[in-house]
Amino acid sequence: MLSVTLSYMSKAPEAPVDNLYKLRHSLAHVLAQAVQNLWPGTLNTIGPPIEYGCYYDFLFAEPITDADFGKIEKEMKKIIYQGQTFRSDTLSVTDAKKFWRAEKQRFKVELIEDLEKKDKVKEVTHYANIGPKGDDTFTDLCRGGHVENLKEIPVDSFKIMSIAGAYWRGDETREQLTRIYVAAFPSKKELDEYLTMMEEAKKRDHRKLGKELDLFAFSEKVGPGLPLWTARGTIIVDEVERLAKETEKAGGYLRVRTPHLAKGALYEETGHLAHYKESMFPPMQLDGGEEEYYLKPMNCPHHHQIFASKARSYRELPMRLAEYGHCYRYEDSGALFGLMRVRSLCMNDAHIYCTPDQFEAEFIKVAEMYLMYFKLFGIEKYQMRLSLHDPKELGKKYVDNGKLWLQTEEMVRRAMKKANVDYIEVPNEAAFYGPKIDVQVWSAIGREFTLATNQVDFDVPGKVGLRYATKDGTEQIPLCIHRAPLGTHERFVGFLIEQFAGLFPLWLAPVQVGIIPVAEPHEKAALDLQKKLMEQGMRVEYYDSTESLGKRIRAGETMKVPYLLVLGDKEIGEKSVTVRNVKTKKQVAVSVVEFIEKTVADIQERKLEASIG
Amino acid sequence: MLSVTLSYMSKAPEAPVDNLYKLRHSLAHVLAQAVQNLWPGTLNTIGPPIEYGCYYDFLFAEPITDADFGKIEKEMKKIIYQGQTFRSDTLSVTDAKKFWRAEKQRFKVELIEDLEKKDKVKEVTHYANIGPKGDDTFTDLCRGGHVENLKEIPVDSFKIMSIAGAYWRGDETREQLTRIYVAAFPSKKELDEYLTMMEEAKKRDHRKLGKELDLFAFSEKVGPGLPLWTARGTIIVDEVERLAKETEKAGGYLRVRTPHLAKGALYEETGHLAHYKESMFPPMQLDGGEEEYYLKPMNCPHHHQIFASKARSYRELPMRLAEYGHCYRYEDSGALFGLMRVRSLCMNDAHIYCTPDQFEAEFIKVAEMYLMYFKLFGIEKYQMRLSLHDPKELGKKYVDNGKLWLQTEEMVRRAMKKANVDYIEVPNEAAFYGPKIDVQVWSAIGREFTLATNQVDFDVPGKVGLRYATKDGTEQIPLCIHRAPLGTHERFVGFLIEQFAGLFPLWLAPVQVGIIPVAEPHEKAALDLQKKLMEQGMRVEYYDSTESLGKRIRAGETMKVPYLLVLGDKEIGEKSVTVRNVKTKKQVAVSVVEFIEKTVADIQERKLEASIG
Repeated sequence: MLSVTLSYMSKAPEAPVDNLYKLRHSLAHVLAQAVQNLWPGTLNTIGPPIEYGCYYDFLFAEPITDADFGKIEKEMKKIIYQGQTFRSDTLSVTDAKKFWRAEKQRFKVELIEDLEKKDKVKEVTHYANIGPKGDDTFTDLCRGGHVENLKEIPVDSFKIMSIAGAYWRGDETREQLTRIYVAAFPSKKELDEYLTMMEEAKKRDHRKLGKELDLFAFSEKVGPGLPLWTARGTIIVDEVERLAKETEKAGGYLRVRTPHLAKGALYEETGHLAHYKESMFPPMQLDGGEEEYYLKPMNCPHHHQIFASKARSYRELPMRLAEYGHCYRYEDSGALFGLMRVRSLCMNDAHIYCTPDQFEAEFIKVAEMYLMYFKLFGIEKYQMRLSLHDPKELGKKYVDNGKLWLQTEEMVRRAMKKANVDYIEVPNEAAFYGPKIDVQVWSAIGREFTLATNQVDFDVPGKVGLRYATKDGTEQIPLCIHRAPLGTHERFVGFLIEQFAGLFPLWLAPVQVGIIPVAEPHEKAALDLQKKLMEQGMRVEYYDSTESLGKRIRAGETMKVPYLLVLGDKEIGEKSVTVRNVKTKKQVAVSVVEFIEKTVADIQERKLEASIG
Repeated sequence: MLSVTLSYMSKAPEAPVDNLYKLRHSLAHVLAQAVQNLWPGTLNTIGPPIEYGCYYDFLFAEPITDADFGKIEKEMKKIIYQGQTFRSDTLSVTDAKKFWRAEKQRFKVELIEDLEKKDKVKEVTHYANIGPKGDDTFTDLCRGGHVENLKEIPVDSFKIMSIAGAYWRGDETREQLTRIYVAAFPSKKELDEYLTMMEEAKKRDHRKLGKELDLFAFSEKVGPGLPLWTARGTIIVDEVERLAKETEKAGGYLRVRTPHLAKGALYEETGHLAHYKESMFPPMQLDGGEEEYYLKPMNCPHHHQIFASKARSYRELPMRLAEYGHCYRYEDSGALFGLMRVRSLCMNDAHIYCTPDQFEAEFIKVAEMYLMYFKLFGIEKYQMRLSLHDPKELGKKYVDNGKLWLQTEEMVRRAMKKANVDYIEVPNEAAFYGPKIDVQVWSAIGREFTLATNQVDFDVPGKVGLRYATKDGTEQIPLCIHRAPLGTHERFVGFLIEQFAGLFPLWLAPVQVGIIPVAEPHEKAALDLQKKLMEQGMRVEYYDSTESLGKRIRAGETMKVPYLLVLGDKEIGEKSVTVRNVKTKKQVAVSVVEFIEKTVADIQERKLEASIG
């Protein structure tokens, strides 16, 4: 089972209390204090650090707007310049509630009541800011983790980014609050880099480019989170799929095809209904209500059934069953986001059934496949995160076999080291049946994506009765490696749109070449050239001469067609074309023969950059 | 919407009362009379003619077996030899009930009570057989349609085929009856042909061969009617799909990809929930029960949403959106049958949006695509059935626009004539939104399959708001042609298994070449040859020398590998191979170079017969 993380960016593991955490956390106190100074009586709620800074949720008496950002930043800087420090106070819950009632901060009272009721807490800590004169300037309910002195926060390294609506406790029936987002970094340089990246990311936003380049569409009638791939988008998806199939064929994978639903009984046996039900679509009642069927959230249970469809021998192992399989996962409609968080996912899935002896070699081959793909797609920065179990969660979040967990985790560590792949370890993030490796990559503009996972399953194959006959005639349970180097089509194409800013390499471009005759007399030659290129398998669009030359060139550039070929008298006479490389913006004249030769080679070799211009 | 008929054979239209019908219907009376003679007091129910003969359902006091078939046939012949005739009697329902009560035939009484209650019938007809002495030998409740004299039935042209259990009125809570099936034809020759075909069909049964050749599997845990394509079967499916994609690319189709579910609202708008709900899977309740989602029974509503995703111009038409789309249809579990009646279907679907002016040319191109495929797969006998609407069903079974129905039907007739394709017309079998063409084909052994349909939709595009801008700037609704020449993967591969008896042409064979070294010293050369052939893209299996030569050849033959190559000293010395053509059973020696050249060409050209041996 591949639980490809559905978050757009990696889910932050429990954040360590490092210096950056302290800076961002302290800044949230500064923000709340500033808001209180400017709008006394505003109700504060909570304000955690986030991956690029912090936020704080308030209930304002009057709505604020973007125009207030400058004022708030100014007040925040004023507070920082004062060099305030923090003091920790431990209060009984009774005193704490009394304190906040006096302050007229009812959300804080509610938070303490909840801590009391649910967590049986008797005492809570408060943190007070101490001003230059030793006075308490601001107090918050807080577990700690601050800078010593606010002066440690560089005043030029944070910026209020945006405001957004957020329900108190995420509950639509409760108050709608105003969330203020702040970007915060250790230095101005890092803040600037972040702001530049965000600027660039906005231009590269896959939702925006997806629409402009007509790559995919959502339909209110079909439903949210269910992307429809248009003709242009399908070309990219098909090319990615062709790459995966060629790679997997060369790697000895066997392709299979499985339906998109199964009886609930199957998911009871595999453990999905016990461990994963809230991510699954609701059941359909079939056969007079006697059977419940579920859309498949993963392909593994189906692949296991193919493995189980006949008696297997060690001679057949490793057996690598591959399928670009469509899975369905239930995401809250509010959490859906473009192609990044969807409800239908087409996964570059495969399950490798192997003996323990074969595990290491297979695992290394998978790691090598990842590295090959990274190179092909120009992914220069990546990280592997080995997610481990937590002994405290055995029998709950994880299958209850501590010894096998440790063995398998060690096996994976050994394989990673042998493959010479750097990785970090993350506790308590494994799949329920075994350790997994999450692969994070950074796009060309430095944004982080969780694309793929690679997992070892030492539990489910046995539970669903998979067996093979060994050489000596005994029966053994195979290990199963789940892998999906290219993640899902949805997430991966979304990533590629940002990675290439819509300017795809030739082999991926929906239209590879645009042909533009200078004027009407050049149309015949232009159409002949189109035919010639299409015979070579190229995807070619023809722009007839009804519009001006400039307008047609701009049209081709807008649609980010890699090559625009202009044909006039000179080119026709010389059997050449003027090639405009839309990415480099360079324009060169080459012979038709040379153009075809180089372009066919670029496409075949899946080159990142086009060779001409 | 492609309502690919889910029946294995074509659904018989309301059977005309022709001579064959009379013969088979009369024979059902003979069968019932024979049973009464042999087992007096047996309860009779009903006995209609069927596509290859007739059946009759009885409630026997003691179960009968295959061993009784001879006795029954003998009694039937005796009755026929008597030259009995038929007499029609019209009785009031009161008299009729009295008659059957006296005969102690309670099912007949129930039938008459039902006619009385539901159809308000006052009188019923009975048919009595008159024996040679003028006596009534047997009476049945019947609407007529018999031979004049039983002697018209040739006694050597019928045969009791089988018995089966059947619930009275198909109701599991009622009595289980014994159904006796009789094959009946106008001549012994035709009966023999039918029996031979059935014999051959049993050997070619796709369920049997599918298991033996490991092409697909069903899993009790996944659910009935949901086939899993194994690695070998997936190769066939993938090859068929590759053919379709190449053909469609050359035909100017654009590929799209759509998810497998949509909101109920979509199917309300298209009319599927009104006209097609009982064939759809039950809904899933999403988003807190606020939205109902359905698995898609057809791809058209999704394709329409892609058409609707942006403003369209006449310049884009005809727009041909193609997808091998997975659809889900709810079939009663009792009706499921191998790959022929399934619940998950992967359809060779496309929707052609066009102007009325473009319709004819597009329709003809589709017809030509059918004919090309027939030739490629060696389908020599086929028939196109043009299904029309029934004016009486307008507003009920069919969209209520009589004028457009007539216009569209005429348009299809014209196109069929222009394409020079023979067809027959069938009333009252159209899709709810327009006329359709069902394509029946006959397999190599003469069995009939309904593979594909081709439909014209003049209704739904308008209903769901599809529009294009015409040259003069007005808005028009496009016509939509639904087509699926290769039907569904499930049905089509099922057909191919029977068509080729598992001995697939090279390009479709899961394994194309088996390599068999005579003994251990020849293994290296054999493995080198395997590598060489695989570099040419061939699917090659290697049989190492641990088993005897004969055993390995038989293994290759059992798996129906088209070519088995034997390599010994002689072959290695001569750089040749001994090629065993498993279909023709011929064995020839050719040079390795020639083998590769011819085989690569056969595969590339998708030849029906392998060139060597």
